[in-house]
Amino acid sequence: MKTGSDTTLPHTLPADTICAVATAPGGALGMIRVSGPQALAATEAIFRPARHNTAASHNAAADSSAKQPGHKLADQKAYTLAFGQIVQGDDIIDEVLVSVFRAPHSYTGEDATEISCHGSDYILQKVLQLLVGRGCRLARPGEFTERAFLHGKMDLSQAEAVADLIASSSAAMHRVAMQQMRGGFSNDLKRLREKLLNMVSLLELELDFADHEDLEFADRSQLKALAEEIAQAIARLADSFRLGNALKSGVPVAIIGQTNAGKSTLLNALLHEDRAIVSDIPGTTRDSIEDTVNVQGITFRFIDTAGLRHTDDRIELLGIGRSLDKIDQASIVLWLLDATDGQGQLQALAPQILPRCQGKTLVLLYNKTDLCSAGFTLPEPPAGVPADTLSLAISAKEGWHIDELQQLLVQAAHLPQVSQSEVIVTNLRHYEALCQGLTAIRRVLQGMDDGLSGDFLAQDLRECLYYLGLITGDITTDEVLGNIFKNFCVGK
Amino acid sequence: MKTGSDTTLPHTLPADTICAVATAPGGALGMIRVSGPQALAATEAIFRPARHNTAASHNAAADSSAKQPGHKLADQKAYTLAFGQIVQGDDIIDEVLVSVFRAPHSYTGEDATEISCHGSDYILQKVLQLLVGRGCRLARPGEFTERAFLHGKMDLSQAEAVADLIASSSAAMHRVAMQQMRGGFSNDLKRLREKLLNMVSLLELELDFADHEDLEFADRSQLKALAEEIAQAIARLADSFRLGNALKSGVPVAIIGQTNAGKSTLLNALLHEDRAIVSDIPGTTRDSIEDTVNVQGITFRFIDTAGLRHTDDRIELLGIGRSLDKIDQASIVLWLLDATDGQGQLQALAPQILPRCQGKTLVLLYNKTDLCSAGFTLPEPPAGVPADTLSLAISAKEGWHIDELQQLLVQAAHLPQVSQSEVIVTNLRHYEALCQGLTAIRRVLQGMDDGLSGDFLAQDLRECLYYLGLITGDITTDEVLGNIFKNFCVGK
Repeated sequence: MKTGSDTTLPHTLPADTICAVATAPGGALGMIRVSGPQALAATEAIFRPARHNTAASHNAAADSSAKQPGHKLADQKAYTLAFGQIVQGDDIIDEVLVSVFRAPHSYTGEDATEISCHGSDYILQKVLQLLVGRGCRLARPGEFTERAFLHGKMDLSQAEAVADLIASSSAAMHRVAMQQMRGGFSNDLKRLREKLLNMVSLLELELDFADHEDLEFADRSQLKALAEEIAQAIARLADSFRLGNALKSGVPVAIIGQTNAGKSTLLNALLHEDRAIVSDIPGTTRDSIEDTVNVQGITFRFIDTAGLRHTDDRIELLGIGRSLDKIDQASIVLWLLDATDGQGQLQALAPQILPRCQGKTLVLLYNKTDLCSAGFTLPEPPAGVPADTLSLAISAKEGWHIDELQQLLVQAAHLPQVSQSEVIVTNLRHYEALCQGLTAIRRVLQGMDDGLSGDFLAQDLRECLYYLGLITGDITTDEVLGNIFKNFCVGK
Repeated sequence: MKTGSDTTLPHTLPADTICAVATAPGGALGMIRVSGPQALAATEAIFRPARHNTAASHNAAADSSAKQPGHKLADQKAYTLAFGQIVQGDDIIDEVLVSVFRAPHSYTGEDATEISCHGSDYILQKVLQLLVGRGCRLARPGEFTERAFLHGKMDLSQAEAVADLIASSSAAMHRVAMQQMRGGFSNDLKRLREKLLNMVSLLELELDFADHEDLEFADRSQLKALAEEIAQAIARLADSFRLGNALKSGVPVAIIGQTNAGKSTLLNALLHEDRAIVSDIPGTTRDSIEDTVNVQGITFRFIDTAGLRHTDDRIELLGIGRSLDKIDQASIVLWLLDATDGQGQLQALAPQILPRCQGKTLVLLYNKTDLCSAGFTLPEPPAGVPADTLSLAISAKEGWHIDELQQLLVQAAHLPQVSQSEVIVTNLRHYEALCQGLTAIRRVLQGMDDGLSGDFLAQDLRECLYYLGLITGDITTDEVLGNIFKNFCVGK
């Protein structure tokens, strides 16, 4: 009798020992990670544990078992620290703390050490050189996490979540990455795979006895209910990618309007509120490709559109084609209007713009209300503007009603609060695999309706299993692994 | 009888608990330090230790004593690690490793924890927020090291060496900072202070009995020998500052020559050899104020000088005044000459340049030898050029003889090899205190020659003691401490 297990490609477990600096250059402290069969021996070879009374900065001697002269790292308990020196001959390279971990109870699942030293690049590079001199190899990007995967400490979707967690810059994205890293998504997939395997087993058992009698072991209506349940679960996961992608890449917002409508001032006003969060994260400054603003834990990504220019009392649509194409990428369109200018611009541009905004949230944003000496009252939207269009009056320059705009953006984003227990797919690779899995399970459902025999159904079920297995890495290749981990940072 | 001890200002020991991120933003891992009486309690309050089977990424459970459900950090041994989660209510902020240290066996001498988490700025800021919510205060720059000083873990010169160690970018500077951090300088000063105190005691004993008889307890010739020994030791330390400053700031080198002599190409050729070391250290890139090049562990600092322009067969000394002033700051002058141009430039500029090079190492550097189709032979230096002037022919563009130039620079730097046991003063504050101490001890010697009485001599000896005490921080004020630690980075 066939079993229900699917094929997996075996990976050889690494036999060498890797090292890398895991912290960014320039801090007070730096951390070097060492992992592999020789991690303890290589660290031992360059480490001199402190003795009583000799340690200048730490004064050591806290745990007497770790401080006796002649004490060896190799004898030291896992999950303990040793204070001492990294030495090269008689030269002291640094005074350090070494953390000791033993297989399988480490991040990688291997023997490992972490060397915490002063954050001098000179020192960090020197320690790496010494480790390489003792047979360690410099780690590739993501290789510690890759080893954690290869040693079964986490599946592939969890490993990918580690990179997302490090890159997370909003509360929502952090929560989703944490949920994924802790195995929430993996558990959902595992349950789905169990159901699929169960279904395959039933069908294959039926096939084995097919020659004997006209017997249906598997109750077709029960099987169909099961397949429908699976299809729904996969569809729900695939659908969550719209939210997940918005969380990861930001909710796409297009700001359109005349060149002088105050787009830049508006962005600055929004960024200003957020500067404390945005400015500290490398790669997310205003100089990056697109401006992102974090409002109440939601990231908004402002799509660059060319300004529309107003000349000779008529609207000259300079670059309007390109700007309209950008609207297509957005889920929210902020149409920035000059409050001092009446409804003229709105009516002139409406025929070109309104059709492109279908299915999106359109906001009419009357700016420069500070210049309206008689005050400003929100006008009724002219005919042709959809009923669900939102309107707001602001002064970007004076910061008036920017809070309301932020509220409106959060509301328009239509993003549900993400709970810690909810699984949200944020990874394009996972989404694509889910879509292919969904196609396969829908073929199973169609096949049942068409009265296909069990062997055809089983084939599609196996295909669905295959795609789900790609996500967790139950089925993977070195090439897939290489593509995933090359985008990690070194030291992770 | 008076004792020989000098006055010290008492500092109140800190009663609050501080926290800071000790690593630079952007790495795979980040580290948060917590120190103070509440360090363990505050960390405990936001930490949930992992139980068996629940830890996704570390799988914990290495040291069973640290992993039992309900296990408390407060009960955990010093120098051990706990794996678990930083939590805010039900939200998991990160999976972390917490290192536990107990007073006085920690860097600061206080109870302390170190939280090693994923290097996401979002996570690091969140953990800091939680700690602040539990009564911790964000640490000022250098406050961990300041606390180490206040708790007597190190003296002030050792504390200052910590910052130098982190900033060290050459082998020599690293070695000097390490020697100072490990107390080499402090020991020298301690011995000097003991000798001074001994001398003061003898003189004061004599004073106490001065009314009784015409007695000299202290043999004046012995005392004089002692004072001379002290003066020599202080002078040696003060003299080492020339070397120390060259190590810390780099040996100052002026490159002079015509605008088109190839200065920029030469700098690039020198930097190229060194790029691997220079480029990774923030603030030491070519965009910084002055170019520095590291050759065989010695840092050379190239002083920017205006190029000299050659027009109409005569040398127009454009900005020559400013360039000549820059020569005064240099200890090595590289005079870059065009090898295709004979001795004309040399002879034309010699009257202005040569007088400024006295006491410096002058190098005649014949560049562009690649353009000499008939080869190039080093000419005899013309009359008037000092006999100890060095000459070298190179091609900066082709990289010819750049190795020899580096050798020549190292030789011209006149920097002795720094041994790990040698004390080199690198800090201007220390140098100034040594100079003032030296003046005081020389007054003692002069006073002995002049037959001054013991009370006058003792006063000058106490002044010398005072200045040496400023260096180690035996005598200090909050203002001095503030000035020293404000230049540290946060987290150290």
